[in-house]
Amino acid sequence: MKRTKIKELLARSAPLDKVLVKGWVRTKRDSKEFSFIEVNDGSCLASIQVIVDAGTPGSDALPNISTGAAISVSGELVTSPGKGQAFEIRSHELELVGVAPESYPLQKKRHSDEFLRTIAHLRPRTNKYGAIMRIRSKTSHLIHRFFEEQGFFLIHTPVITGSDCEGAGEMFRITTVKGTTPASEDFFGQETNLTVSGQLSAEMMALALGDVYTFGPTFRAENSNTSRHAAEFWMLEPEMAFCDLVGNMDITEALVKYVVSGVLDTCAEDIALFANFVDKTLMTTLTSLRDDAYVRLAYRDAIDILQSAKKDFEYPVSFGTDLQSEHERYLAEEHFKKPVFLYNYPKGIKPFYMRVNDDGETVAAMDLLVPRIGELVGGSQREEREDKLLERMKELELPEEDYWWYLDSRRFGSVPHSGFGLGFERLLMLLTGITNIRDVIAFPRTPGSIEF
Amino acid sequence: MKRTKIKELLARSAPLDKVLVKGWVRTKRDSKEFSFIEVNDGSCLASIQVIVDAGTPGSDALPNISTGAAISVSGELVTSPGKGQAFEIRSHELELVGVAPESYPLQKKRHSDEFLRTIAHLRPRTNKYGAIMRIRSKTSHLIHRFFEEQGFFLIHTPVITGSDCEGAGEMFRITTVKGTTPASEDFFGQETNLTVSGQLSAEMMALALGDVYTFGPTFRAENSNTSRHAAEFWMLEPEMAFCDLVGNMDITEALVKYVVSGVLDTCAEDIALFANFVDKTLMTTLTSLRDDAYVRLAYRDAIDILQSAKKDFEYPVSFGTDLQSEHERYLAEEHFKKPVFLYNYPKGIKPFYMRVNDDGETVAAMDLLVPRIGELVGGSQREEREDKLLERMKELELPEEDYWWYLDSRRFGSVPHSGFGLGFERLLMLLTGITNIRDVIAFPRTPGSIEF
Repeated sequence: MKRTKIKELLARSAPLDKVLVKGWVRTKRDSKEFSFIEVNDGSCLASIQVIVDAGTPGSDALPNISTGAAISVSGELVTSPGKGQAFEIRSHELELVGVAPESYPLQKKRHSDEFLRTIAHLRPRTNKYGAIMRIRSKTSHLIHRFFEEQGFFLIHTPVITGSDCEGAGEMFRITTVKGTTPASEDFFGQETNLTVSGQLSAEMMALALGDVYTFGPTFRAENSNTSRHAAEFWMLEPEMAFCDLVGNMDITEALVKYVVSGVLDTCAEDIALFANFVDKTLMTTLTSLRDDAYVRLAYRDAIDILQSAKKDFEYPVSFGTDLQSEHERYLAEEHFKKPVFLYNYPKGIKPFYMRVNDDGETVAAMDLLVPRIGELVGGSQREEREDKLLERMKELELPEEDYWWYLDSRRFGSVPHSGFGLGFERLLMLLTGITNIRDVIAFPRTPGSIEF
Repeated sequence: MKRTKIKELLARSAPLDKVLVKGWVRTKRDSKEFSFIEVNDGSCLASIQVIVDAGTPGSDALPNISTGAAISVSGELVTSPGKGQAFEIRSHELELVGVAPESYPLQKKRHSDEFLRTIAHLRPRTNKYGAIMRIRSKTSHLIHRFFEEQGFFLIHTPVITGSDCEGAGEMFRITTVKGTTPASEDFFGQETNLTVSGQLSAEMMALALGDVYTFGPTFRAENSNTSRHAAEFWMLEPEMAFCDLVGNMDITEALVKYVVSGVLDTCAEDIALFANFVDKTLMTTLTSLRDDAYVRLAYRDAIDILQSAKKDFEYPVSFGTDLQSEHERYLAEEHFKKPVFLYNYPKGIKPFYMRVNDDGETVAAMDLLVPRIGELVGGSQREEREDKLLERMKELELPEEDYWWYLDSRRFGSVPHSGFGLGFERLLMLLTGITNIRDVIAFPRTPGSIEF
């Protein structure tokens, strides 16, 4: 007989004569005549209650069936007389599959997030971390489905790169040689790094295939131990040919709404856990993200708002300054109380590939600011004009020869195009209210931390 | 007006008064009264024919509209009088968006794969490479959809790893320091590498969530320049709790059939290109993969077949030898003429984590062998018994302390579980008949080759 997952059983509308369930014991209570076992199989947050009569085949294993043990139960799915759950299982046969001795670290009590990080291999067996992993999976699937429905092609841009294309951040170096062996004798014959962005590669594909996206691991070697930075994280980077900044914001807004709406619809139980125990404002944030029209505001106007705000910011702002998280959050959380696109940023604080506006001092950049997180998305219309691009590269002293292929795309059939980057873990923090990036990644990598 | 993609236009059942198309010129023919332009926008293999009457607004740009140029055309979608295509566009207005001077490398003539690798940033603009990128995208989407439908959770296992868990191959080292600085002063405080497999991490998640899969970039620092090896490639690794070797083969077979069937249904035009111009046997292979029941054969019986085969193999075989590609292909291509699972391999040629069978000399491993490729999938039931696992680790002199977390999973609620690895690029080579792995990856990484 094939096992049925608990998620399927609990979604049924009618009882069932014969079921086989396999999973891990969350709790067990014994009385003289029965034992009650809560079994969870990871398919959903809820466990199912199993009732084992004394004398049931296999019930001699009951003394060894403790929290964390794996069991197999065949029996009857019956309507539950208790509150909370529609069904429970009357066991006909019980099997202890794998014991969990008393040293099992996840005994029934609350554990701190800090402690659970030290047992990242076991923490997905808890309610909270099981829930975040299911939401992470569903969010990924929703992203893929959104882009597939919109006619985008998924591309895989390389992790190993020979260029530091954007200067987006500190890079990890990759090598197969030791000590002072010159890079020319290394595996690739030159210095190579872990990618900080797949954008430039994605542009090449968009200029052939139309609409594309890359979604994969991205790296920063920044030695800062904060709750918002990891050395390895996932980034979504769509790139659209024949698309301007307005189209870029349209797609960003449609994507975020699609994902939030999909998660609310399909992960209701897991989301409720976070809304109840992690962030009391979560449902308000998520319904706003799903239902509100996002504000679209020029950077220049944002500066005006921030300057006249009755608020003591740590960092002062004026035209030309890069906004800090405190400013971004003020705009989204306090001033507008909903997501805000800022666009047309000063040229000086943005990378070389962004399209220079007619005013000569701003570029067609946009950031999406959201409550609690600040910047969720950063994007731009790309500079498609070869002469303007070369001008910017000269200003920033970027060596033309390193970018020959990128420049080629502006020489041969260049078209207006746009794209953005969305930090996947930031999206997950937004969706769950979790405040430490280490807790939305299965096995996080941060300075000094490489276990598992 | 919003542009419509060519794929959508060609799928229509009726003409349309007003359309806007944007794309790249494949060819142009001029006559006195008309010009005929084939426009491709990457949404599908087919281009659409545009007819521009002399004197149409924008037609003064015609002399500069050459192969590779980007144009925008508004006009009427009319039934095509010619053969081959249902519709064409009568242009009302033409705009040259981006020129392509004569130096554009993709003029209309056949180019060698070798040459096209040197312009990997432009090659997706050709029929063949556009097709492979669309098939790559669709195949990814089908994989995600298959597992989502089966209730699997997508997990992201880390690329940066502190362990060389399997000894699966040579690894790239990651560093942020130079020269002879000791690893203890490096970013992670120890030596770290690029992952060769996410399996051990995936097992931890399967033992919490049930059925999971990881699908991401994987690395080998093997300095071999062959048509089948790349330093960076994508690997799919599902892992299933409460699943034995038979279940493992069942899921593998269902997945491959689902993907092949889906690609045949949704990428018919692109697949036809490969069937016509790359591999004349492609359709036979693909329909066999979709329709035939896969053979399931014990390794021991395969040895018998190979030993009695009327065929001169370069390498002799006997029980205990690792099969070579020639043996794998003989079984799948000549002897059975369909996909073959081999299972129960000798313990000595397989890694420590595979479950030892009761005979004490074989392990519950399985490989899926397919025509032309040889091994497409390698998997096993994992050793869930702590004592047996420790025994194997001692035999292979693996340090216990490095695997404390892996061993934990056998101490706390251990259950029978299985999984496999599928090389994504091998699958794409199987689906297209392409024989060089460099040609199914957007920007391939091989020894000495890191451009783009």
